[in-house]
Amino acid sequence: MSLDGKISTIERRQVRISSDRDMSRVDALRASSDAVLVGKNTLITDDPKLTVKSSALREERIKKGLPANPLKVALGCINELNIDSDFLNHGQAGKILFTTSKSDNLKIDELKTKATVYVSSEDEINLDYVLETLYKLGVRRLMVEGGGRTIYRFLAAGVVDEVYVCVAPIIYGGEDAPTLVDGAGFTSDNAIKLELFSMEKEGSELVLKYRVLDA
Amino acid sequence: MSLDGKISTIERRQVRISSDRDMSRVDALRASSDAVLVGKNTLITDDPKLTVKSSALREERIKKGLPANPLKVALGCINELNIDSDFLNHGQAGKILFTTSKSDNLKIDELKTKATVYVSSEDEINLDYVLETLYKLGVRRLMVEGGGRTIYRFLAAGVVDEVYVCVAPIIYGGEDAPTLVDGAGFTSDNAIKLELFSMEKEGSELVLKYRVLDA
Repeated sequence: MSLDGKISTIERRQVRISSDRDMSRVDALRASSDAVLVGKNTLITDDPKLTVKSSALREERIKKGLPANPLKVALGCINELNIDSDFLNHGQAGKILFTTSKSDNLKIDELKTKATVYVSSEDEINLDYVLETLYKLGVRRLMVEGGGRTIYRFLAAGVVDEVYVCVAPIIYGGEDAPTLVDGAGFTSDNAIKLELFSMEKEGSELVLKYRVLDA
Repeated sequence: MSLDGKISTIERRQVRISSDRDMSRVDALRASSDAVLVGKNTLITDDPKLTVKSSALREERIKKGLPANPLKVALGCINELNIDSDFLNHGQAGKILFTTSKSDNLKIDELKTKATVYVSSEDEINLDYVLETLYKLGVRRLMVEGGGRTIYRFLAAGVVDEVYVCVAPIIYGGEDAPTLVDGAGFTSDNAIKLELFSMEKEGSELVLKYRVLDA
């Protein structure tokens, strides 16, 4: 994020905020996860590949008997997801979509040719259901990559163990720019309390690791 | 700010984000400044005292031939500013208001009994005019305390030398919560670039100091 907590500018396009070094760190984090998850806005706006970029890290996973890449998971209405998207096509990885009955049935059928699709009958996707389903598929370590609304939902549900943040030496500003944690937000009474357990500095860039404390 | 860049929760009330240690650090920063400035929203919502809390620091200033407190300065339409506010009444300090012709004339006359009021004929207050006026009054070191829109205006005008941020181990979230730098925001092309020159850690709280780099 930028120093002022933004994960993109007011233009809301995918921007490269952090250094090569941080990108490698994120890649290693992905390689150490069983699944990598994004929300609908990130899925549509960024069309992330979510694969492990380093071939050495992919080979390490294979040596351990794991698939080359963690499962790719996306949450939310999928009407705008393109069948030719990088999310669905890039790299050898299992793909899972959790969506709602608001999604178009024909679209769901089309996407089922490329991914496993779970359709919730509720309007909002139930995170407990998502986590239980992923657990049954063997996921023990889930990396939530964003965006801000999805991170908010996971924090609000009380299911986050750790928060890792790279603070880039830049200011984006903008009351309409997306931030690290968006959504409805917390009050002073139920704000998420953290404990800083690791801090790395490389030039003017910081990588901060926090544990989420019990409420 | 909270880890996610918020300076209050979605409730937008004044909240105590940082530790006693950080409050002392802010007090020392105030004592080292010739003037302390806030924008209209912070003025009305928080009614900040803006005075130096430590009597030792006030005495040090007096020994140097300075007033006990730096000048208090506020920017923006002042119709809602109460004549009994802490900003206007707490502590011995010069008070300066920069406002526009949108402010009510009777209100301006009332406030002139407590502060020096500069009324701009333009709709927006010209920051060059503010800085020139303060310079003529002897201000060489100006501390902009907030809020996010005011910090944005100063950054956008290219008149900020340093940015000091305390990052508290807490997450507030909320797309409507105020952030460290709000306003219209920057694009990737004109985002503010920084250089980290100091970092202090006390428990899980961080104090980061950055220099603003030339565009």
